[in-house]
Amino acid sequence: MKKSDCFSIEQSIVHPLIQCSFVSRTVKEHSYEIMESLDLFDISNPTLNDQCFEKKEAGKRCFIVIDDNVYHIYGHSILNYFKFYNIEYGIKVLTVSEKTKTIDSVLAVANELDQFNLSRRNEPMIAIGGGVLTDICSLTANLYRRSTECIKIPTTLMGQIDAAIGVKTGINFNGNKNRLGTYYSSGKVLIDRTFLQSLGDRAFNNGLSEILKMALIKEPVLFELLEKHKFAICKDRMLGKNDYSTIIQLSIKSMLEELAPNLWEKSLERVVDFGHTFSPVLEMKAVGDLYHGEAVSIDMAYSVLLAHEKGVMSKEDLDRALNLFVDLGLPTDHALCTQDLLITALDDTCTHRAGKQNFPLPVTIGKSTFSNDITHDEIAKIVHRMKSLHVELV
Amino acid sequence: MKKSDCFSIEQSIVHPLIQCSFVSRTVKEHSYEIMESLDLFDISNPTLNDQCFEKKEAGKRCFIVIDDNVYHIYGHSILNYFKFYNIEYGIKVLTVSEKTKTIDSVLAVANELDQFNLSRRNEPMIAIGGGVLTDICSLTANLYRRSTECIKIPTTLMGQIDAAIGVKTGINFNGNKNRLGTYYSSGKVLIDRTFLQSLGDRAFNNGLSEILKMALIKEPVLFELLEKHKFAICKDRMLGKNDYSTIIQLSIKSMLEELAPNLWEKSLERVVDFGHTFSPVLEMKAVGDLYHGEAVSIDMAYSVLLAHEKGVMSKEDLDRALNLFVDLGLPTDHALCTQDLLITALDDTCTHRAGKQNFPLPVTIGKSTFSNDITHDEIAKIVHRMKSLHVELV
Repeated sequence: MKKSDCFSIEQSIVHPLIQCSFVSRTVKEHSYEIMESLDLFDISNPTLNDQCFEKKEAGKRCFIVIDDNVYHIYGHSILNYFKFYNIEYGIKVLTVSEKTKTIDSVLAVANELDQFNLSRRNEPMIAIGGGVLTDICSLTANLYRRSTECIKIPTTLMGQIDAAIGVKTGINFNGNKNRLGTYYSSGKVLIDRTFLQSLGDRAFNNGLSEILKMALIKEPVLFELLEKHKFAICKDRMLGKNDYSTIIQLSIKSMLEELAPNLWEKSLERVVDFGHTFSPVLEMKAVGDLYHGEAVSIDMAYSVLLAHEKGVMSKEDLDRALNLFVDLGLPTDHALCTQDLLITALDDTCTHRAGKQNFPLPVTIGKSTFSNDITHDEIAKIVHRMKSLHVELV
Repeated sequence: MKKSDCFSIEQSIVHPLIQCSFVSRTVKEHSYEIMESLDLFDISNPTLNDQCFEKKEAGKRCFIVIDDNVYHIYGHSILNYFKFYNIEYGIKVLTVSEKTKTIDSVLAVANELDQFNLSRRNEPMIAIGGGVLTDICSLTANLYRRSTECIKIPTTLMGQIDAAIGVKTGINFNGNKNRLGTYYSSGKVLIDRTFLQSLGDRAFNNGLSEILKMALIKEPVLFELLEKHKFAICKDRMLGKNDYSTIIQLSIKSMLEELAPNLWEKSLERVVDFGHTFSPVLEMKAVGDLYHGEAVSIDMAYSVLLAHEKGVMSKEDLDRALNLFVDLGLPTDHALCTQDLLITALDDTCTHRAGKQNFPLPVTIGKSTFSNDITHDEIAKIVHRMKSLHVELV
């Protein structure tokens, strides 16, 4: 037997009332790779075949779970790719939304894996779609036979720089966003920006919001690149300029830098939680009306106001930030954002962060701190300011 | 931010078609402790309070999930314990069986955690019951807010030396045993042998079967202890003799020795899979009729016959093994065990072991090897031998 992981078992008798005590300690390396390659499903690009099937000639099997919109547009060339490379596949076309991001979708996929009799070790699931789809699929893969490889091919900007980059899986439960899920790193993540061409403006901006998050909280260079291309980036769908490649890579790299040392969220002080304090409750209340990135954008806008209100961010930086929201076409407010909702959301997030606010606040553009003393009064003030600002902006 | 885990991010450009590649590598220590203490819920025993609530004076909260039979017998003293130690609790009494070891039970528990608003970091779930209950609860804890501490207090022999000792969680799906689950180590495991007093003979023997497994495949001393106490052990419910303490500790230790170096089953050559090749299919076919340990016992009996059939085990050891099955009151056969069923089960297990049989076979008492060349013909022979043996035994 290969006993490659470090491990030890300690036996001790520590107390008269304790007959024996064993401590099992194991060290495990978790690694995963994210690759960017254009035109992944062009048969002249062997990346997917080579990377995911180790250049095997025969016996290649996988199970594809694909978003129905993606299937409608790219299905033909994707299936053609698998046929060309002689990869046997099963396929499930999934219609996904926050409303169907539930255990039922997980079980529906698991059922298909059972029918296809997928081997948990050498036959991957391949998840092609947005963040909701890859979240559902990676949870299913984690659960199916206790761990099946899941190769993620995110087709939205949100998926490419956020949802598929980390190890979080999740589904909504009881009206709570991602209330059930796991941390699971398994297969490769393959990023192909050409998928972004078929996104609508709103779907594209959904992901842009998370790029702005990393820019505001951690990456001043990223912020400058967003400012430079603010009117073109959405129209260009992140294709055709070298800066776009830099934007994607900086986004992924800065996200990984934050995630890797804290993959299981042992520390609940996470700068990547910027924009994710008020937004979970807002998003679930406005389900069907607000995209995840839109809720995050609104949360960030309130958060920069809060940073200024608390005196940690200058007026100059505040204005620079708020202007970029507007120029990028990202929302800053929503009718549901009342003082009550923001307080409820802060309390709920507080529970999730083990009783602490751990509220990430930008200090300047690209630098942040954590706050734990946000008061109801301050919330009242920023709601008031936002509503006036909103009137001004209109 | 505490960046206590080792990590690295590597960026490389490996191929003209690959724009960039990031590899995220993280090392994580997984540890968990198993303690044996008698009379856990006697208020004079502070072990549970001290170990699980760090001797906190106030603000102690937990959510108890307890088997209905256990609750019926011990509920009063258990709740009294929590009250005495000033621990606020929510409680869910669960009726469990292989039939209800499903996602519905997981969601029912998760729903209760939501109602109780359990904090994922400093408020544990406490699972009190048999292996089915701790499997359901540890999966729920893994899923709830992506990881909630789960303290396991197994009340059956099976739970104490097998189910609660490892990190596997699971539920049945699509008629397949433990088809959905995870590997999850979280909180402490507390073993209290006094719970065994209220077990029926059949439930007690259910766990004895897994002890016999470790004895046959890995621990000759354990086998000798079982032989020595074979007529008393069930009657005594593993209480009152020093040897019983040794039996429990040897069982746990030998199980941990096998699990710890291979906690995520990277290697699919697992001696602890002895008795678990034919049994999953048999158990699901005979659901409601056979206990897990009974199915394992029958599988082991066929397996020792197979070991002898293949010439790896002597007739003397075979007879010694089969006699112990009988003397311990463990079953060796079932009407559903036909050649067809055993072949189907072997094929299914083969899929689960990534296409290899990896069949653990005892060589002598307490020593084993793996076989990968079991033929249908050999299966036919052992079925024939078992049926004649069965006739002889009757």
